[in-house]
Amino acid sequence: MINAKAFSKWTLAGITAATLVACGGSEQSSSTETQAAAPAKQETIEWKMVTTWPKNFPGLGTGAEYLANNITEMSGGRLKVKVYAAGELVPPLEVFDAVSRGTAELGHGAAYYWKGKAPAAQFFTAVPFGMTAQEINSWIYHGGGMKLWEEVYEPFNLLPLTAGNTGVQMGGWFNKEINSLDDFNGLKMRIPGLGGEVLEKLGGSPINLPGGEIFTALQTGTIDATEWVGPYNDLAFGLYKAAKYYYYPGWHEPGSEMELLVNKTAFEALPKDLQAIVRSASRQATQDMLDEFTALNNDALQTLVNEHNVDLRPFPDDVLKALKQASQETLEGVAANDEMSNKVYESFKAFLGKVSQWHAVSERAYINARDAE
Amino acid sequence: MINAKAFSKWTLAGITAATLVACGGSEQSSSTETQAAAPAKQETIEWKMVTTWPKNFPGLGTGAEYLANNITEMSGGRLKVKVYAAGELVPPLEVFDAVSRGTAELGHGAAYYWKGKAPAAQFFTAVPFGMTAQEINSWIYHGGGMKLWEEVYEPFNLLPLTAGNTGVQMGGWFNKEINSLDDFNGLKMRIPGLGGEVLEKLGGSPINLPGGEIFTALQTGTIDATEWVGPYNDLAFGLYKAAKYYYYPGWHEPGSEMELLVNKTAFEALPKDLQAIVRSASRQATQDMLDEFTALNNDALQTLVNEHNVDLRPFPDDVLKALKQASQETLEGVAANDEMSNKVYESFKAFLGKVSQWHAVSERAYINARDAE
Repeated sequence: MINAKAFSKWTLAGITAATLVACGGSEQSSSTETQAAAPAKQETIEWKMVTTWPKNFPGLGTGAEYLANNITEMSGGRLKVKVYAAGELVPPLEVFDAVSRGTAELGHGAAYYWKGKAPAAQFFTAVPFGMTAQEINSWIYHGGGMKLWEEVYEPFNLLPLTAGNTGVQMGGWFNKEINSLDDFNGLKMRIPGLGGEVLEKLGGSPINLPGGEIFTALQTGTIDATEWVGPYNDLAFGLYKAAKYYYYPGWHEPGSEMELLVNKTAFEALPKDLQAIVRSASRQATQDMLDEFTALNNDALQTLVNEHNVDLRPFPDDVLKALKQASQETLEGVAANDEMSNKVYESFKAFLGKVSQWHAVSERAYINARDAE
Repeated sequence: MINAKAFSKWTLAGITAATLVACGGSEQSSSTETQAAAPAKQETIEWKMVTTWPKNFPGLGTGAEYLANNITEMSGGRLKVKVYAAGELVPPLEVFDAVSRGTAELGHGAAYYWKGKAPAAQFFTAVPFGMTAQEINSWIYHGGGMKLWEEVYEPFNLLPLTAGNTGVQMGGWFNKEINSLDDFNGLKMRIPGLGGEVLEKLGGSPINLPGGEIFTALQTGTIDATEWVGPYNDLAFGLYKAAKYYYYPGWHEPGSEMELLVNKTAFEALPKDLQAIVRSASRQATQDMLDEFTALNNDALQTLVNEHNVDLRPFPDDVLKALKQASQETLEGVAANDEMSNKVYESFKAFLGKVSQWHAVSERAYINARDAE
């Protein structure tokens, strides 16, 4: 565990190094309708956002840029955020530590990458047979989830915010048919977080690789199978060139929430209006990424199926039922081994139980009525 | 149709009436870590937000307050927004005109209330057998919807932004069973927008009442049935005291998008950073309202069923199938009668066709796998 206090120096150094421009000029600006309430020139702060994504990677890397630009724009340039792709400043899987110690003030990624630091973090990205995008956002912002997430990151001097959601993902790319649970036995598959733990329970070997390394690993046979995101991102990586079957639905990631890690010392040093801007930009980005994925996934799916002849298949019903059972056992196991995970899981489970009942008469009942054959 | 130019005077008068405070003090503020980039004191603008909701009405009225507060907070008080409940400044169904002429700079409501002004507006709130919350946001922000919405409101000097979503609503409160389409014949039901036009096609009489008048109308028999929002809001209005059956799903409002109307002249007079703040706050509010409804609807549903003995019923499958057919015919009719409606409908229909295919392998396949008995 990182001692946050030992690093507070770093953060303050980062802030005082920011360019400071004194207020001036706005007394001269008049109250004509085009200049009303023009922002006065004043001190500017420069923040770094490190990310776990390749440069401008569609949806995820561009989502980080979108968020950074909105903070800069809303603050009238008082808080300038510069984005660094994976590896530019720190390697992708060191984003958590970099923001914790204040090397960067912001980090864009997904909480389940940090299960080695804090097992409970996994519940805030994606839970096998857990909540959809709409449900997890509701739990985080109106169901007690955010308070728990803050508690998980508190020892690391980090504040969590949401920064995007992919919607329901795809089940993954395989080079053999999946006809029963036995087909997961011995499988080396890139699948992070709790989904990986379910695979392990079934006798497979979960591998945690950052996005940029997946294609080569799959093509060279270092891994047998992989999940990534959905048609839009999977097409961009060319995964169809390295695997035969494309399975759905993504039982292991039913609405993966992206996160914005914020160095707590740096955040608390901001004036209230800039704090509100960072928070609002993160909600805006959360919605916008989901909107973008929703719009673009179908086009990409058509391209994969019609142009690249991808074999699109549903997991058999009995495989899904068995995966659900294995997932629940895995979650109980994770909760039993870590006090904080247990606390988060209890909250997650209670919310999911209630929202499933509500969605049975709303979202689910509706979409089945609309799209029934 | 309103001539926007005739009213531009009003808008400018509203702006110049704002309290103006000259910049000062920030040259004195130092660069200690707690004061870095503190907002300089400068001119403030005061805006009015008129709404179609009763004072602090749960979810909708409070959503308007949330949005207004976020704008005020993010702008460091440079743009102060004060919310007026329905009737405080203008009656609920005059919000559109009030913002168009600049009596207020902002209006919070739902686009389908304005079908008398612009029939195409209805497509941006809710379409029978149309898109869910996730889908309509995607269409508006990444599928071409926003550009069309702006075009619809252009003649009124209005800029549309989204300001919330209710998720899939309930089918409504009835005092008789619904066993076939014939049961809608002769029914006087409060149901606005396109859903109302479907009812009319089936021989019923759609009534457009603001929220605050529904309960009394239902109790006194002025109307036979009503839809409103979902369990959370319906419970708040006490509708269970005036009707026997509570039907689902809300085929007529599968994800009703709330809107923020912005007087275009006033918006364009804002500096870029305040424009960005208004836009971001509207996205934040869009997501937050859906999160809130999702979290609270189930609790309210349990209260309705368990404490108030409400008879919760699904519409029969063949009724839903017939309603879908009637809805499509209604939409074709609306599109055939108005050029702008036709343009919007074509875009809506094309997006819905694609997103239904994607959601068949993602959202729908997943939620059915998770919640299958």
